[in-house]
Amino acid sequence: MNRIFIEDLKNHIDSEVTVQGWVDVRRDHGKLIFIDLRDMTGKVQMVALPNHEDAHKLAETVRPEWVVSVTGKVNARPERMVKEGELNGELEIEVLSIEVLSEASELPFEKDAEVNLDTYLDYLPLTLRTKRGQDIFKVQATIVEAFRDSMRNKKFIEFQSPGLVAGDAEGGAEVFEIPYFNEKTAYLATSPQFYKQIMVGVHERVFTTPRAFRAEKHATTRHLNEYITLDCEFGFIKDHTDVMDVHEQVIKDIVSSVTNEHSKILEVFEVETPLVPEKFPVMKLREAQELIKKETGKDKTNEPDLEPEDERFLCEYSRKNLGSDFIFITHYPVSKRPFYTYEDEEDLGFTKGFDLLYRGVEITTGGQRIHNHDKLVENMKKWKLDPEKFSYYLQTFKYGMPPHGGCATGLERLTQKFLGLASVKEATLFPRDINRIDKRLSE
Amino acid sequence: MNRIFIEDLKNHIDSEVTVQGWVDVRRDHGKLIFIDLRDMTGKVQMVALPNHEDAHKLAETVRPEWVVSVTGKVNARPERMVKEGELNGELEIEVLSIEVLSEASELPFEKDAEVNLDTYLDYLPLTLRTKRGQDIFKVQATIVEAFRDSMRNKKFIEFQSPGLVAGDAEGGAEVFEIPYFNEKTAYLATSPQFYKQIMVGVHERVFTTPRAFRAEKHATTRHLNEYITLDCEFGFIKDHTDVMDVHEQVIKDIVSSVTNEHSKILEVFEVETPLVPEKFPVMKLREAQELIKKETGKDKTNEPDLEPEDERFLCEYSRKNLGSDFIFITHYPVSKRPFYTYEDEEDLGFTKGFDLLYRGVEITTGGQRIHNHDKLVENMKKWKLDPEKFSYYLQTFKYGMPPHGGCATGLERLTQKFLGLASVKEATLFPRDINRIDKRLSE
Repeated sequence: MNRIFIEDLKNHIDSEVTVQGWVDVRRDHGKLIFIDLRDMTGKVQMVALPNHEDAHKLAETVRPEWVVSVTGKVNARPERMVKEGELNGELEIEVLSIEVLSEASELPFEKDAEVNLDTYLDYLPLTLRTKRGQDIFKVQATIVEAFRDSMRNKKFIEFQSPGLVAGDAEGGAEVFEIPYFNEKTAYLATSPQFYKQIMVGVHERVFTTPRAFRAEKHATTRHLNEYITLDCEFGFIKDHTDVMDVHEQVIKDIVSSVTNEHSKILEVFEVETPLVPEKFPVMKLREAQELIKKETGKDKTNEPDLEPEDERFLCEYSRKNLGSDFIFITHYPVSKRPFYTYEDEEDLGFTKGFDLLYRGVEITTGGQRIHNHDKLVENMKKWKLDPEKFSYYLQTFKYGMPPHGGCATGLERLTQKFLGLASVKEATLFPRDINRIDKRLSE
Repeated sequence: MNRIFIEDLKNHIDSEVTVQGWVDVRRDHGKLIFIDLRDMTGKVQMVALPNHEDAHKLAETVRPEWVVSVTGKVNARPERMVKEGELNGELEIEVLSIEVLSEASELPFEKDAEVNLDTYLDYLPLTLRTKRGQDIFKVQATIVEAFRDSMRNKKFIEFQSPGLVAGDAEGGAEVFEIPYFNEKTAYLATSPQFYKQIMVGVHERVFTTPRAFRAEKHATTRHLNEYITLDCEFGFIKDHTDVMDVHEQVIKDIVSSVTNEHSKILEVFEVETPLVPEKFPVMKLREAQELIKKETGKDKTNEPDLEPEDERFLCEYSRKNLGSDFIFITHYPVSKRPFYTYEDEEDLGFTKGFDLLYRGVEITTGGQRIHNHDKLVENMKKWKLDPEKFSYYLQTFKYGMPPHGGCATGLERLTQKFLGLASVKEATLFPRDINRIDKRLSE
């Protein structure tokens, strides 16, 4: 008999069906044995009665996470037993026969038990099977796809940015080294920056969603050694505000996809739909610092960057006073940005660059880039980089590049903040940090 | 004035417009200077006349790959000058003013010149700007998206498979080592195999399109050290034929997307639409070897695998005699497949695994996997692998796994064969091999 998905059972009341999945819970009431079965589409309550002897006997043995194929009859529940608003609350399967596809060992803890983060990560193949684990990564899949759809709607073309690179793009972040062939050294990409600029020369508007790797030694709730970056870059811009406009639309498209497709999940996570105004508020860094000084009394007007507490303050301020969960901060000092960032001719010393803050953290960084070859070479020298090492990248500028810009969003941070998770590691399927690659490395 | 895309000019005849792009070619006829301008949507011929003095003067100086913003009048061409079937063959822009956005150095060779592969790769930021370069990667973007769409239509959920791993999944391929923190060693993923099996336990049906890294030392037209793998895995299968059925549908969806969206590109590359029958032909390896013996006289019936010439023969045979550019070969010997491959109980010594051949090469490999924990551990020992090292992966099987399977397709090979390219490196944006990461490493 063909398998029926659990979410479709309501169309099969009074019929005999086969369902397949994992045993979520078994409740043994002696004569009546209740089994909640879980497949990718949801859960259903099944009941094994003594009159179906073989099935009842097997039902006594199954335990959580056993995988079974069950043939049974779909019965409507009596009115007083109906659970309103719950998938299959109006029905129950009377078990006729059970086939065990796979047994499971006893679980180290109740699957839904609250465990500390390290235990959660030690047992990911199991803990991801909770509704919570499934839901986080369903939302993440929707974010990625909404990003791609939004970009394609704006004529951006996807490209595949490499993981192995010959040098470090950013000239700042810690980079992983790889012994390559013939005693050469390769590096793991810290960003697709150079490649997306090269691709602006080819397709004009591009996006890519590669992994980025950073050999940063700190283990915090917002850092990872490997993450997914949602990147775009495009040519023929007026300035960084064109990039901000495109990005704002992309973020709106993502918010709308996630809230449309996953309203129930958002309810369970008890997170509010992001406040999205018609235009995201924009402040220069110095304006933001003046505001912080005025509102909190803390004078940070000489700082070259925002600290985590500043980002949190600005997000709270924006939410309360500007009706937005998102706020752009622009014009960071040239010295705090990479060598390829465009300096604002009308505000010397500051860049046509921006960060987008969301619920207390920076989720996106971007801006206009330098497109003039000689200016880039000059900056490389100022940044103590050897232009000869960048000769491949520099070809792009040698052979004609339009004014262009782009931005990069951390997928895991966006997922974390969207769902209100305590650590970015919960928003990362298989987080890598200084102490862990799947297993703890100290083991 | 707002920029108009070059492909939209036909809607602006007799109007004044601004177009922006790269100078593709300039032909100086003294009084008349013709400039072909290129943007992401196509090309247009512009003419600078002496009566617009400033523009004419500037037009004398621009060279290929200069980036310009041009304001001009869109004129219909006289009937006898119309180039039928060509974008903008019916019109021409009379240049009124030119703004140079970026100059370009003299090109090292004509952009469309046929150069050898090494020179082509040395100058990718330039050579990718040819129509050919652009087209290859437009087709590739379509393949990736068609794969994802097809998977999503079948209820598969995307996940992000990590690049840094703690050990080698396949226990065979050469793997890159990375010095990690605290004198530990990490590795670069050679495949998402373990993670997609773990994710079957979570979402039941999953796909992922990550990079895979192989430290293979041979430089051929079909090997790369880094490539994109289009991977899927799903549970509750009957056997490997369920995987083949899903994959066949995915391949058909990809073929149909590419032929629908890029018919003009396929014409330019002079490639025929793939021959796609209602059902792809299927042969066991031994049947294929008997066929080779019968048709060519070469006895390979004792070989455990196909050689490249065998793959080419089978594809030619399939095309001529079975009406298909695709052919599945199943039942490779257990000893030639990874430890997790499912042995056919009715054909002992051979696996429920398959390869898909297309135009002379294997583009996909897949099959049913072992879902029984103890059997997996037993096989690891047979394959001389230490189960303790795989304890993280093994949790998935310890806690209940359905019969499952999946497959993996090399994106670059598929692109290469689809477009009839001589080397897989032409189908890879930034190919990495033993001698090259962007620049040649011997430099």
